[in-house]
Amino acid sequence: MKILVLNCGSSSIKYQLFNMEAESHDVLAKGGIEKIGLKGSFLKHEKENGEKVLLEGEILDHQTGIDYILGVLSSAKHGCIKKLEEIDAVGHRVVHGGETFNSSVFITNEVVEKMNECIELAPLHNPPNLSGISAIESLLPSVPQVGVFDTAFHQTMPKHAYMYAIPYSLYKKYGIRRYGFHGTSHKYVSARACEILGEEYKDKKIISCHLGNGASIAAIKNGVSVDTSMGFTPVEGLMMGTRAGDLDIGAATFIMDKEMIGTKSASILFNKQSGLMGITGVSSDMRDLLAASKENNPLAILGMEMYSYRIKKYVGSYAAAMGGVDIITFTGGIGEYAHYIRKAVCEELGFMGIEIDSSANEAALGTESVISNGDSKVTVMVVPTDEEFMIAQDTKRIVEELANR
Amino acid sequence: MKILVLNCGSSSIKYQLFNMEAESHDVLAKGGIEKIGLKGSFLKHEKENGEKVLLEGEILDHQTGIDYILGVLSSAKHGCIKKLEEIDAVGHRVVHGGETFNSSVFITNEVVEKMNECIELAPLHNPPNLSGISAIESLLPSVPQVGVFDTAFHQTMPKHAYMYAIPYSLYKKYGIRRYGFHGTSHKYVSARACEILGEEYKDKKIISCHLGNGASIAAIKNGVSVDTSMGFTPVEGLMMGTRAGDLDIGAATFIMDKEMIGTKSASILFNKQSGLMGITGVSSDMRDLLAASKENNPLAILGMEMYSYRIKKYVGSYAAAMGGVDIITFTGGIGEYAHYIRKAVCEELGFMGIEIDSSANEAALGTESVISNGDSKVTVMVVPTDEEFMIAQDTKRIVEELANR
Repeated sequence: MKILVLNCGSSSIKYQLFNMEAESHDVLAKGGIEKIGLKGSFLKHEKENGEKVLLEGEILDHQTGIDYILGVLSSAKHGCIKKLEEIDAVGHRVVHGGETFNSSVFITNEVVEKMNECIELAPLHNPPNLSGISAIESLLPSVPQVGVFDTAFHQTMPKHAYMYAIPYSLYKKYGIRRYGFHGTSHKYVSARACEILGEEYKDKKIISCHLGNGASIAAIKNGVSVDTSMGFTPVEGLMMGTRAGDLDIGAATFIMDKEMIGTKSASILFNKQSGLMGITGVSSDMRDLLAASKENNPLAILGMEMYSYRIKKYVGSYAAAMGGVDIITFTGGIGEYAHYIRKAVCEELGFMGIEIDSSANEAALGTESVISNGDSKVTVMVVPTDEEFMIAQDTKRIVEELANR
Repeated sequence: MKILVLNCGSSSIKYQLFNMEAESHDVLAKGGIEKIGLKGSFLKHEKENGEKVLLEGEILDHQTGIDYILGVLSSAKHGCIKKLEEIDAVGHRVVHGGETFNSSVFITNEVVEKMNECIELAPLHNPPNLSGISAIESLLPSVPQVGVFDTAFHQTMPKHAYMYAIPYSLYKKYGIRRYGFHGTSHKYVSARACEILGEEYKDKKIISCHLGNGASIAAIKNGVSVDTSMGFTPVEGLMMGTRAGDLDIGAATFIMDKEMIGTKSASILFNKQSGLMGITGVSSDMRDLLAASKENNPLAILGMEMYSYRIKKYVGSYAAAMGGVDIITFTGGIGEYAHYIRKAVCEELGFMGIEIDSSANEAALGTESVISNGDSKVTVMVVPTDEEFMIAQDTKRIVEELANR
């Protein structure tokens, strides 16, 4: 079964074409369009053999962009399929499913309507996701589509974990609560960790650290998410590339008063100008900060200390929330490659059974690896995430279930 | 040495007159004025023998109030001293000492000037503290005064714990960072716990839970505060009677947009209408919630679950921050009396060596008690706080040091 996975952002589209077999899968091609609707938009395409092409062109909107992608995928020169009919299904990453979607769904008109109702919760993210769905609807009208929500995995959180201590009426009126994001990644990585270890996913207490440019951490107990650090929006929780993470709301209103800014500017400040970038003034990229810290840049050093300290605190917090922890996973660009961050997070946690093997940790760069030592009660691992594969898998399952009805 | 301790709020003054001996102390009298500058202001006075009197009177400002207190203390009918000259020193609780004050200080004109500079950080709290100081200055001009800051104990936090992940310039410009509050209480309770246990304060890892109408938790390692849950303002951290505690700043700005409110109304919302009161709609008082939860009020039950869950997460978080924990203390009205909250916080924390003795826990009501069992690696205790005594102690020490110079 050939499945196209789409991740539509406000000015970008990422895609991956999978060939899903019963027991294995191949990525036939992948790539992305950037600067949709802007000057200098382009498509980067990578074939199964690793060959890359860059195609420039004026891409005005998501429909043009997806049309372009389909053209490339089926082209004689760069393509991997002969005709578009070979695509059996399309899976979409959808950022916010609110309280409506607690699992992936086959997309119908009714589902699209309900997705529209979730726009308010993710005004920047859900509209491009919906554009992608409608583009496929018109370009490949007979192909089944599946929506996979970033929030769905966390819908199992208990109420005492997802409610904020604000008037209950604000939850009823606007749905203000913790939703959590990166759900597809947390689900994939935590389940994959158990698969690698040959352990039963449904019996384990897992802390999943997704550390990319966005970053979140999740507590997964007996196969379901019971807490996560991103909240009503993706700004809460860990320190990120440019997002503040946890911040005293009293500090937020103080800053708004002093700087005489409103909620829009405050959102930009806390989402785009904070985090590692805000503290260090150097970069939001951990590799740049590592380099700067080696040159003794004090703010780079501070930024890295803050970054790992906050993760460490969440690890303790979620272990307490679950009554212990069996497995800790690191994923995302920083989680997979920044061994110095993993080390800083895990050191001095011997009291809760966490012992890192230094050389295994330093050697684990973007590969599935156990980085705890033989004495560690908690298994600490690096597990590269693969959200696209997870979306392809869910899409396959749902389309097959429908076919077998 | 007779020391008067004053805690001046915006419309209230609490006082306690101590007789401090080398090895012991007595409370000669205590009481409080409420509704200063409002209709129906009154003074409640309690003598050493427990006899209470209520005196009504028009109390327009802090100076009148303190004059009234001094009159009562030295009165033939209700007093405990013959003349005001018996008062050797006055100790003041001061809420915010910014980064200027990391310990209690003898109050000079220069100190008052520096306190004035901290007003911006605590616009509601520091001005009445300063009014109290200036009232004593004019009423008892020759009596030495000492300021004891709620923030001072936390000034030992490392930078990676007190910085927020926002642009560094905002820290430089406005001093936006975590300060923490309840420092006098956290210091007293944690040191007192070690005294009771006969343990060395400087060697221990302690988590101090101050759970009153305001609530905060502190990580104290080797005798110094290394992290605490209240931040730039007292709204951050734990869920409180009417304060929200931790909240996604994205949710805060979303609410401001939807409800069309500015920063002032938002502050009122998150400080006065949130917390236990906001969630339950029943009460901010844990005793009322316990009663309502026994009648199966679902929101009272939810509020209590949220309340203890958040403390539990901070306990795990701070244990991780310190690389373990030896002693956990509970204090404040809820910490000292709500054994069901203490139980909920500590249960299922066996993995980190915490085991509660149920009957000891239920029996510990406002009394110094160990509530962990013999198998518990971590000693869990109830230690009633005594901030006033701590202030009297600091005042005595500083006045004596000055006298011996």
